Amino acid sequence: MDLELVRKALGEQPFSRLLGTRLVDCGDGGATLELDIREDLLQQYGFVHGGVLSYLADNTLTLAAATVVGLGVITSGFTIDYLRPATGAVLRADAQVVRAGRTRVVVRCDVTTVDGSGVRTLCAVAQGNVAVTESAGSPR
Amino acid sequence: MDLELVRKALGEQPFSRLLGTRLVDCGDGGATLELDIREDLLQQYGFVHGGVLSYLADNTLTLAAATVVGLGVITSGFTIDYLRPATGAVLRADAQVVRAGRTRVVVRCDVTTVDGSGVRTLCAVAQGNVAVTESAGSPR
Amino acid sequence: MDLELVRKALGEQPFSRLLGTRLVDCGDGGATLELDIREDLLQQYGFVHGGVLSYLADNTLTLAAATVVGLGVITSGFTIDYLRPATGAVLRADAQVVRAGRTRVVVRCDVTTVDGSGVRTLCAVAQGNVAVTESAGSPR
Amino acid sequence: MDLELVRKALGEQPFSRLLGTRLVDCGDGGATLELDIREDLLQQYGFVHGGVLSYLADNTLTLAAATVVGLGVITSGFTIDYLRPATGAVLRADAQVVRAGRTRVVVRCDVTTVDGSGVRTLCAVAQGNVAVTESAGSPR
Repeated sequence: MDLELVRKALGEQPFSRLLGTRLVDCGDGGATLELDIREDLLQQYGFVHGGVLSYLADNTLTLAAATVVGLGVITSGFTIDYLRPATGAVLRADAQVVRAGRTRVVVRCDVTTVDGSGVRTLCAVAQGNVAVTESAGSPR
Repeated sequence: MDLELVRKALGEQPFSRLLGTRLVDCGDGGATLELDIREDLLQQYGFVHGGVLSYLADNTLTLAAATVVGLGVITSGFTIDYLRPATGAVLRADAQVVRAGRTRVVVRCDVTTVDGSGVRTLCAVAQGNVAVTESAGSPR
Repeated sequence: MDLELVRKALGEQPFSRLLGTRLVDCGDGGATLELDIREDLLQQYGFVHGGVLSYLADNTLTLAAATVVGLGVITSGFTIDYLRPATGAVLRADAQVVRAGRTRVVVRCDVTTVDGSGVRTLCAVAQGNVAVTESAGSPR
Repeated sequence: MDLELVRKALGEQPFSRLLGTRLVDCGDGGATLELDIREDLLQQYGFVHGGVLSYLADNTLTLAAATVVGLGVITSGFTIDYLRPATGAVLRADAQVVRAGRTRVVVRCDVTTVDGSGVRTLCAVAQGNVAVTESAGSPR
């Protein structure tokens, strides 16, 4: 799976451009996305909105699966548990494939914040299912 | 629970303002949010990004719980299953409290799209937990 | 979907025989299972063990899906939220298909207890995914 | 957290005695349970019933949380994704606390089978929430 190919797929998502999401790394069943925390992404208490965390988890789960089975994938669903209020400079999600079947890939994801000193805090954990809509080898 | 109070809480979320979310109705354990579907909210295939659906489910779950136990609530987690690609004019989420305990409220939510003719299509279903951080009767 | 066919499938599960599960009704995307609450199925506080509720939800989700797409199905996963301690004479689960796709069926389920007077109490809610392993029309 | 105390709690669950569950290890936010796979625990295709896996995940999540916050806990809900048919000699669940808050503990769990040669196969992954019903320091 080419990093540039995944980056291009992410760049073609208007919503990811609106939020400023960037691909940090991907390969071997893993993917890492980040976005800069800014005022626009907060809820009423000054923390990052839960919906931003769930968006980032969703997207990272999908891309982690894509590194194993190709870009013909779609997230069919996921569970997220919030652990702590998210605050800091950067929001980061690391996803790792647990099991890639022929039609379904199960993935886990950790969502962390990174502050100005690089200190990471785990803010949410997710577990999701990605459906394989076309096999990696099939023509696109 | 005053509709205007909930509307005010929603309006104080910068991320909800960015997405253009509006409170349509709430009360008696139920809440309905909507947002207009626009280019900015799509993924690469032209459908509404899953992250927008999960954001809207999350927010509606929380507000439905708030109608029963007050605004001192925070979503602790949820599960979402996507059913169909989301496309149309408006994205709508209807949430209903299943059980409100002293410290935890369990809520279900349906996410639908509404097209120009008012036809609704169910696109995702969610089930979540909302934590009561302060009781409705306590001073804020 | 023949009620007797589903009943036979359930009867072929040794674990369901151990627990005494019976099919009460099924058809049109819905299924209802029951079992008699007995000492063997409890946890240390005298309530039905959560594992019995999750087992019953799992099994009912699968059978509800089978009424739409045939018996070639397998539950791929589910979420359950416990609402109240389960106590009474009978444990009952009612599942209803939310959306049946070609390869995946999404189902919701309510787990209730029924006491000696027939009064029902909602004890858990579940939402799950059932994978279609062979189409209803294909040879078995 | 005393291993014998947790073992005693498990032994007081009639349903765990029915299934033959034993505590292998626990401490520091982790817990491992096992049970011998036998005919009684299977579904109609000869694999361990999904309900047995979900039961074992549920129970192990709870005990892992108990090692951090004490035995005054109750599982409020969980998500499980099945990965492979479960077959072998022993069913095993390893759970680890991800985050222990004052009122809620989030835990992840891996369910594996172990065959006669000791080879382990990952069959399901779970993520759950455990509610703290009384603090570890309070009188019981």
